[in-house]
Amino acid sequence: MQNLVLLRHGQSQWNLENRFTGWTDVDLSEQSRQEAARAGQLLLRHGYGFDMAFTSVLKRAIKTLDIVLEELDLCWIPVQKSWRLNERFYGALQGLNKAETSEQYGAEQVQRWRRDPHALPPALSPDDPRYPGHDPRYQHLTARELPLTENLSQTMARVLPYWTEQIIPAMRSHQRVLVCAHGNSLRALVQYIDHLTDAEVTQLDIPTGVPLVYELDDDLNRIRHFYLE
Amino acid sequence: MQNLVLLRHGQSQWNLENRFTGWTDVDLSEQSRQEAARAGQLLLRHGYGFDMAFTSVLKRAIKTLDIVLEELDLCWIPVQKSWRLNERFYGALQGLNKAETSEQYGAEQVQRWRRDPHALPPALSPDDPRYPGHDPRYQHLTARELPLTENLSQTMARVLPYWTEQIIPAMRSHQRVLVCAHGNSLRALVQYIDHLTDAEVTQLDIPTGVPLVYELDDDLNRIRHFYLE
Repeated sequence: MQNLVLLRHGQSQWNLENRFTGWTDVDLSEQSRQEAARAGQLLLRHGYGFDMAFTSVLKRAIKTLDIVLEELDLCWIPVQKSWRLNERFYGALQGLNKAETSEQYGAEQVQRWRRDPHALPPALSPDDPRYPGHDPRYQHLTARELPLTENLSQTMARVLPYWTEQIIPAMRSHQRVLVCAHGNSLRALVQYIDHLTDAEVTQLDIPTGVPLVYELDDDLNRIRHFYLE
Repeated sequence: MQNLVLLRHGQSQWNLENRFTGWTDVDLSEQSRQEAARAGQLLLRHGYGFDMAFTSVLKRAIKTLDIVLEELDLCWIPVQKSWRLNERFYGALQGLNKAETSEQYGAEQVQRWRRDPHALPPALSPDDPRYPGHDPRYQHLTARELPLTENLSQTMARVLPYWTEQIIPAMRSHQRVLVCAHGNSLRALVQYIDHLTDAEVTQLDIPTGVPLVYELDDDLNRIRHFYLE
C-alpha cells in the first residue's frame, strides 16, 4: 500500500476580491500562508513524509508547497512544476469581478460556466495581454496547447497526461508523492482516481489547505481516501 | 554570448555562532534573507532573467534561491537540487566552535584544514549521528560517495561531474542558468571556469549575497566576469 496526498492552495488575493483568477499569477493572501503552514504541521504530526512533489507554474500553488515542505523540513526533495497542473483557464473572464460578471451575463450563465463541464467561458483573443502565449513560462507550449478559454472537461484532458506520464511513474517507483495544485486541476485527478462521472465531479468541492490522503494498493487503485484533520 | 550567474548564500545561524557548518542543514539568519532579497532586486534592476536554477540540498542555499526567484517573479522556473553542490563536508569538525577548535588543535592546524586543498579534517565515524548516511536525502549515494571528511580538492572532485553533466548541457541548450550554492562548491566551479591553480583558489573568497556574473562565449569559455553592484 502507498499514500498519495493532494493539497489545494488557499485563498489568493483575487479570491479575496472575488475575481476570476484562472492562470493569472496572483499571490497568496496572508491567511492562506497560515493555512499552508497548518497543513504542513498536520502532515508532520501524522507522520507523513514525501520523496517528491508536483505543482503548477502558478505561485499560489508553488508557495503553498514551499511552506508545507518547510514545515516538514523537506525543502530538499525534488519538486516538478508543470502548466498541466494549473487552475482551469477562464478565458476572457480572467480578472473580472464575479458579482459584476453575474450582473452582465446573468447568474445562471455564470453558474453554468463554473459548473457545467462543457460550458466554455468567452474566449480570449491571442492579442489580449492575458493570452498565455505572451508569457515566457508557456513559450514551449504548442498553439494547440495554449488555451483561449477552457471548459472543465478540457482542463481534465490536459491534467491527465501529466498524471499518467509523470505522477504515476513516480509512484510506481515507490516515491511518496505530494501534489499541490488548484481546485479544478485536483478535481481532474480525483475524478480519475475515484472514477467519478461528470455530474459527480461538478458537485465535488475540495476544501483549501486540507490534505486529502489517498491510500492506494500496489496497482495504484484506491483503497480509501480521507481528509487529514 | 551567454551569461551564467553564481550566488553564494548569506550568513547562516551557525556562521553567527562561529561554528563549522559543512553539511549540517542550518537555517538562514534574518540578515541573510534580506541579503538574498537585495541580490534578487539587483538582478532584476540589471535585467537578468533565468530559465533554470541549480542549488544544493541544504536549506540555506535553497531558501536563498527561493527568495531571489521571488524577487525576479521566476518562482515557476525549474530548480534542480543536488548534494554535489553542497558545502564542503567538514568531518568531525561539523558543529564545533571555531575558536574552541583553534584552542584545541592550534590556530595553524585549523587554518591548514580550512585553506590547504589537501588537508583532511578529522573524519567522522559512520555511527556518528552526523554521518550523512543516516539522512534520507543522501540514501541514494554509494558508500564511496558518502563522505566521512573532505578536503577542498575532494569537494571539487564531486562538484565537477555535476557541472559537466548537468549545468553545461543546460547552458548548451541556451538555458540562462543561476547557481545558488556555498563558499567551497562555488570555488570549485570558479577554479574550473577560470583555470585557477590550487594556490590561487585557496586565496579566493567569494562574497555572500553578491551575484557573480560570467559572460561566456559560444564554446562556454569565459569572456569576463564581474560582481554585480
